[in-house]
Amino acid sequence: MSDSSRPGRLHSAIAELATFNDDPASGGITREVYTPTYARALERVVAWMREVGLEPRLDAVGNLYGSWTGTDATAPRVLTGSHVDTTLNAGAYDGVLGVLGAIEAVRTLRDAGFTPRRTVEVIAWAGEEPRFGTGCVGSRCAAGDLSRADLDRLVDRDGITMAVALREAGFDPDAVKDAVVAPPTVHALVELHIEQAIVLETHGEPIGVVEAIAAPHDFRIVFEGAATHAGATPMGLRRDALVGAAEAVAAIEEIARGSSSGTTVGTVGVIRALPGAINVVPGVASLDVDVRDSDEPAREAVVAAIVDAARAIGTARGLDVGVEEIVTDTPVACDAAVVAASVAACEQLGLTYRRMISGAYHDAMIMGRRVPVGMIFVPSRGGVSHHPDEYTSPQELDRGVAVLAGTLRRLAS
Amino acid sequence: MSDSSRPGRLHSAIAELATFNDDPASGGITREVYTPTYARALERVVAWMREVGLEPRLDAVGNLYGSWTGTDATAPRVLTGSHVDTTLNAGAYDGVLGVLGAIEAVRTLRDAGFTPRRTVEVIAWAGEEPRFGTGCVGSRCAAGDLSRADLDRLVDRDGITMAVALREAGFDPDAVKDAVVAPPTVHALVELHIEQAIVLETHGEPIGVVEAIAAPHDFRIVFEGAATHAGATPMGLRRDALVGAAEAVAAIEEIARGSSSGTTVGTVGVIRALPGAINVVPGVASLDVDVRDSDEPAREAVVAAIVDAARAIGTARGLDVGVEEIVTDTPVACDAAVVAASVAACEQLGLTYRRMISGAYHDAMIMGRRVPVGMIFVPSRGGVSHHPDEYTSPQELDRGVAVLAGTLRRLAS
Repeated sequence: MSDSSRPGRLHSAIAELATFNDDPASGGITREVYTPTYARALERVVAWMREVGLEPRLDAVGNLYGSWTGTDATAPRVLTGSHVDTTLNAGAYDGVLGVLGAIEAVRTLRDAGFTPRRTVEVIAWAGEEPRFGTGCVGSRCAAGDLSRADLDRLVDRDGITMAVALREAGFDPDAVKDAVVAPPTVHALVELHIEQAIVLETHGEPIGVVEAIAAPHDFRIVFEGAATHAGATPMGLRRDALVGAAEAVAAIEEIARGSSSGTTVGTVGVIRALPGAINVVPGVASLDVDVRDSDEPAREAVVAAIVDAARAIGTARGLDVGVEEIVTDTPVACDAAVVAASVAACEQLGLTYRRMISGAYHDAMIMGRRVPVGMIFVPSRGGVSHHPDEYTSPQELDRGVAVLAGTLRRLAS
Repeated sequence: MSDSSRPGRLHSAIAELATFNDDPASGGITREVYTPTYARALERVVAWMREVGLEPRLDAVGNLYGSWTGTDATAPRVLTGSHVDTTLNAGAYDGVLGVLGAIEAVRTLRDAGFTPRRTVEVIAWAGEEPRFGTGCVGSRCAAGDLSRADLDRLVDRDGITMAVALREAGFDPDAVKDAVVAPPTVHALVELHIEQAIVLETHGEPIGVVEAIAAPHDFRIVFEGAATHAGATPMGLRRDALVGAAEAVAAIEEIARGSSSGTTVGTVGVIRALPGAINVVPGVASLDVDVRDSDEPAREAVVAAIVDAARAIGTARGLDVGVEEIVTDTPVACDAAVVAASVAACEQLGLTYRRMISGAYHDAMIMGRRVPVGMIFVPSRGGVSHHPDEYTSPQELDRGVAVLAGTLRRLAS
């Protein structure tokens, strides 16, 4: 193995990128899209791209492309990438692996003397993390899902619109249409990512080959009863909204476990009880519910069963029940040829792999509605993600790069 | 009926006191103890006291006493009162009724030509609402439960200690001992209050005669699991702290309903799930639990059963469970002679009444550890309290005053 592909190089690069951080005191990494710190991190990525012979360019909304021109300039391209923006107080690997790992995969292929027939492009999508409420804004622009008007509508927690943030970062919101990637120009897109769960760790497997990307259906259930005195109101005279909501939390778990697909997950990540005083029976309680599956009918059946269960609880307890839609995305099946390329790469490398679904959504899901996509997972220690403790070992990272390189070689030949 | 005791007078006085308000824009009343607005409200109360011949004085911590000297100056006194401070965005009746209603009861007795043997004192206790975290600070000083050091320890949400607040309001924290009421000087204390629940309304009864005042045992249960990705973590690989906490919320209701006393109430008024994002399985969830009863052994059995249930849920779900004490108070039995006086007053007036417990705590509970106490309840519409919608009709208020007057006449003779 040459020095250029030495073990652990990628791990060091990830650690270096982690120093581009707006909040080091938190112990984690904060590098939101379109900030000056994000811009400096992109410059570092550009330098790494040039080091392996990738020709960088930025599109109108800040998606960074690094091109390795193929021998057949007219053949549809092979894309690979992820993102280098983070949430608040985040870890070092989410997204970053898919960009720096792709650069490393290109280095591996070059060092092995490979010449692509198709042009290979490494991408750092802008804003996968939801600074503006919605995630994947860069890939949504590339997919043609966001209009100029949307860029004025999307705002961050400080009230800054995506259009204003773009302009301040030196990009051009009025040219958002120029960021659209024409689907016929793309042969395939593959994204390397940490698993963000413990399926691989639990099974002791180094690689996950993703067959489908689950999409969320998010909604809010609001229970309304009566806010009365916690001391003065006998148990038999209460309309406690929180007890109803708590029964619903338990029901959501049970309904998701019983899903026909076996892959549905249902989560209550946010619960609110009002007025929120220890001496007042909660009059209002709300649950933000996230239901995901790669199997859309199974997911929708779970959502319907949850809503039914909530209404039944409301009827039994004399609580009013309201349901508010938050967001619904469409699951994406990975392309059979991309999956086959990753499987072949694993087999050639002698690596065991697991065919699995991605429960989390990624830029690949957004692009997957337009072009053939696939994903490769490596283990996440303890399943920890969006947290400073996020970790994947240097060996695991290098295996992921090897599988990505093998996949790209097959797709670009 | 003379003009001086005309129907609805008390209702008008309560409405007038409601105009002493630091936050009228909220729609409710905000009049926290030791503020300038509270001081002006006390001045208005002093004027009403003088109107009916009560001689006002303020003690070292701002408790306001209005004295009607009896014919036997050496006989232990009869005390009656409540408070005129409020929580934030509160209603007009909580506490205020027990002060202005007592003044009205004195007027009724005077108009009827009654001359007390025992001195009767109407009291507005300072700080029944928990500006400084702990409620009933005025009556706690009178009961001798707070030391000079405690006044430095108790702080409000802005970090102002009770000692500083006292000094700024013109009182003397160093003289806290002077506020202590010597128990032998007190024959009885009776407090008129709104019920703050719907027991009387449900049964269509105008008067509650309180036989015991329940006290809370408050504690926090913390469940700790693993904060993992809501999309990426299969249902079978989760340690969801919120689902465990939700099971505990349901168990708390069931355990309280099954209490041996039949009067225990158990409430979760505050629930927290962290990190609190829709796409993250909650890693930590906490419940603030309030259990109350006038029957202390029954209450403690319920607390023990709740803690056992929480630990069993933790074991079954692989969650760590911690229990933190918040506060424990001792329930108080009302004095048989005070109860008998109120019952006799109801019977003479031809008013139906309900013997009941007070689920809420009051200044009478604090003083009830030292001197004989009793309470009289009037209905609260819909059980609403600590809210702008708090309401008791003029007729219901006047009935409460009549029963209080009859009770005071019997106790002071």
